Amino acid sequence: MGEKVQQLKTQLQQISDLGNAMAVLGWDQEVMMPEGGSQPRARQLSTMARISHQMATSEELGDLIEGAAAEVSGADYDSDEAALLRVAKHDYEQNMKLPVDFVAKLTQITSEAQHVWAKARANDDFKSFEPMLEQIFELTRQGADFLGYTDHPYDALINQYERGMTAAEVARIFNAHKPALIELIAAIGEVEDRVSDAVLRREYDIDTQREFGLWVIEKFGFDFKRGRQDISTHPFCTNFSRNDVRITTRFYKDYLNPSLFGMMHEAGHGMYEQGSAESLDGTPLAGGTSLGVHESQSRMWENVVGRSRGFWSWAYPELRAKFPGVLDDTDVESFYKSINTVKRQFIRVEADELTYNLHIMLRFELECDLLTGAVKVSELPQVWNDRFEQFFGIRPPNDTLGVLQDVHWSAGLIGYFPTYALGNLLSMQYYNTALAAHPEIPSEVASGKFDTLLTWLNSNIHQHGRKYTSAELTQRITGGQIDPAPYVAYLQEKFTDVYGLG
Amino acid sequence: MGEKVQQLKTQLQQISDLGNAMAVLGWDQEVMMPEGGSQPRARQLSTMARISHQMATSEELGDLIEGAAAEVSGADYDSDEAALLRVAKHDYEQNMKLPVDFVAKLTQITSEAQHVWAKARANDDFKSFEPMLEQIFELTRQGADFLGYTDHPYDALINQYERGMTAAEVARIFNAHKPALIELIAAIGEVEDRVSDAVLRREYDIDTQREFGLWVIEKFGFDFKRGRQDISTHPFCTNFSRNDVRITTRFYKDYLNPSLFGMMHEAGHGMYEQGSAESLDGTPLAGGTSLGVHESQSRMWENVVGRSRGFWSWAYPELRAKFPGVLDDTDVESFYKSINTVKRQFIRVEADELTYNLHIMLRFELECDLLTGAVKVSELPQVWNDRFEQFFGIRPPNDTLGVLQDVHWSAGLIGYFPTYALGNLLSMQYYNTALAAHPEIPSEVASGKFDTLLTWLNSNIHQHGRKYTSAELTQRITGGQIDPAPYVAYLQEKFTDVYGLG
Repeated sequence: MGEKVQQLKTQLQQISDLGNAMAVLGWDQEVMMPEGGSQPRARQLSTMARISHQMATSEELGDLIEGAAAEVSGADYDSDEAALLRVAKHDYEQNMKLPVDFVAKLTQITSEAQHVWAKARANDDFKSFEPMLEQIFELTRQGADFLGYTDHPYDALINQYERGMTAAEVARIFNAHKPALIELIAAIGEVEDRVSDAVLRREYDIDTQREFGLWVIEKFGFDFKRGRQDISTHPFCTNFSRNDVRITTRFYKDYLNPSLFGMMHEAGHGMYEQGSAESLDGTPLAGGTSLGVHESQSRMWENVVGRSRGFWSWAYPELRAKFPGVLDDTDVESFYKSINTVKRQFIRVEADELTYNLHIMLRFELECDLLTGAVKVSELPQVWNDRFEQFFGIRPPNDTLGVLQDVHWSAGLIGYFPTYALGNLLSMQYYNTALAAHPEIPSEVASGKFDTLLTWLNSNIHQHGRKYTSAELTQRITGGQIDPAPYVAYLQEKFTDVYGLG
Repeated sequence: MGEKVQQLKTQLQQISDLGNAMAVLGWDQEVMMPEGGSQPRARQLSTMARISHQMATSEELGDLIEGAAAEVSGADYDSDEAALLRVAKHDYEQNMKLPVDFVAKLTQITSEAQHVWAKARANDDFKSFEPMLEQIFELTRQGADFLGYTDHPYDALINQYERGMTAAEVARIFNAHKPALIELIAAIGEVEDRVSDAVLRREYDIDTQREFGLWVIEKFGFDFKRGRQDISTHPFCTNFSRNDVRITTRFYKDYLNPSLFGMMHEAGHGMYEQGSAESLDGTPLAGGTSLGVHESQSRMWENVVGRSRGFWSWAYPELRAKFPGVLDDTDVESFYKSINTVKRQFIRVEADELTYNLHIMLRFELECDLLTGAVKVSELPQVWNDRFEQFFGIRPPNDTLGVLQDVHWSAGLIGYFPTYALGNLLSMQYYNTALAAHPEIPSEVASGKFDTLLTWLNSNIHQHGRKYTSAELTQRITGGQIDPAPYVAYLQEKFTDVYGLG
């Protein structure tokens, strides 16, 4: 390895160390911190962010990248060194585009906005959040200008989460499957009483829920020597290296879904991080390559595996035994249907597999229109509700169940939503490719074996970390790009069966 | 506030933020981290230590201190600003004395030495640790030279933990109470079967131990809105601000002492940190002023309060009710005696109130002799055992129970031990002063009221943080300096009674 490359790696490792240290503080804040700790913790995080930003935008780092690039020119595209240089250069350029003052202002406003939004949501009072949201969209437009784009300001934003993706491409992908979703949802709407999730809303002891969930994700392959699971208000996955990956869960004593499928979901994220190659640890190549690919992993374990008939043919007896009496009147087939209930309802995070992407499309279209000015922030509640009604055939009775439901905009995360839907689509494309290579996967899942699937994911996706962009990775795996067709086919087959459609 | 003072505060706050962030990572490492996380965690901590050291020894900081000093010259000695300047100047000068390479070398060797020592202790194999210990003492001598001293290299070392203390002063204090301890221990040795701790070694359910301990320290006044308690192999107290103070405990199902008195002890440390004035938070003035004063607080709650007859007259019925059947044959008086059992045994951390300081004296004398060369590292096992026998009348059967028992030397913490003993002495001096002001304290303790004592400690000790040195603080409170007489008088009275001596 050249001298400059070595120096660059050392420098980047220190930036990565600081980022991981901040993640420890963030995890602790959500999971462990006593309430008194919040103000000093915010200060500690802000100091570390400042130091980290200084390091990530230093002239020294720029020079090192240039010097190292000369040393590795001609190196194999797939080599760690070449990939390191690509990613380091990209990150550095992105960081340098945003002026320090701009970042500070956005951080400050989104930090204040969290409280304002939470209060507005609690009180169903959009007006109190409106001025702040206007500022956030104004700053976001400025941010897009700083980052630069050719066609649509949205391109600059989504590129932060899904490198190379554009608004036009998202629109094409969404439009290609929206009608099929709407049609299938409508068909189910006519026979919706055929399936009910009532059995999931019985009383489930929380400790036992946790035990069962831990048992499932350990079987999946989540490595507890290199990770742990805890409780938090909002579930998440974080990591401080591939060898210390942490997921969190929320539990309700009268609703099984959030903990059970939440643990599978976060474990899917977690196993992606745990599978990142050892050689990439401590470099910017470590970890997931994009939010969309990350979501493909969480959704694959949660839905494709965790909501499959095969999985429950194996797991249901164990679940029933864990909760004596609770499921006596329910056989595996009706349990399978209950966890695949389709419901037209207002809240994205409660959405089922079928309706989920439609919730995202609504947000994507609104974000684009807000950025171009086609929709004004003040018009949002009205427009949200109108479009929601067009999509779903039901109208939110208030803004708490409508435009105020998500944390993202108050946090400045505009351009983020589409990655959820793209992840759903990718999950099926990747799964189908794994299946083509290993047709035994479904029967293995049905007997509680998950290592063939996990090993395939490890070697085709996880180990590469950020070496390849989402598009490059998808090309390598599927020979093409994001395509909604496999996901639509999967949904049609699954829900035609579950609802006994014609 | 002057401009330079303001800039200095900002700069120092960032150093303090980094230090607190490192403490979060340290806490997490001991309490939460999965085993796979240790290597990346070490790297993260080392990166942060490097950044922190750079900030703490920067020319910029030196200039700011100088500029700010000019701005506050003439300010009241007791003012926050004047104290900030004193402490910042002292810390800066201390940090500047140690060359970066020296610090790095010491860090590296003591980091390696941890494993070597742990293995040597497990295998009773001093020889395998000897070369490393020689290096550590050699580096420690160099460190003392860098730090500077007039009379004895030990002065430079203890000054790091107990500012202004010297080897001569420690020797004077120790010699002034050693004979009394030896005499009292010998007298008890002749009637040692009058008291037994057997009742503490029955089976105590661990969850219930924890419940009881939490109840006690909450009554003491440990604030759980600004702190928490967890489990770790080695108990400790850490904090990330006065509003986020964390203590840890270890539990044995067949021995009540470590959890019960351990929680009181760590809560004593914790309440000191929680009591540091809000205005000092985020500055180098926050937190305890010295290890000795810190230990005075932990030992006061653990021993002076927690091992008193009054305390148990109130708490014993609750303890007995918590463990149905376990204490049926034991009345409060015999329980009180059992927790005050005096035992000549080999391990410092298991020592009772009476023998504890003698264990420290042994270590102090050896450290001094090792620094001057009067004792060689290779002679340590022999000399340790000889002196131990002189002090206690019993001889360690091996080095695991002798010179290898403590972690301190392998960690480079030479000059640290005396602070434990000084803390014991101070605990009684401070307590007596509190008592003179509030003679009702013992009767309050006997009815489960602790706020008069805690309030007194808050206003006389805790709130000042590091504003005053240990010596200044003791002068303010007692009108004098560290004096072993009150502690000896307390021990004589207590143990004459417990053991029914002449």
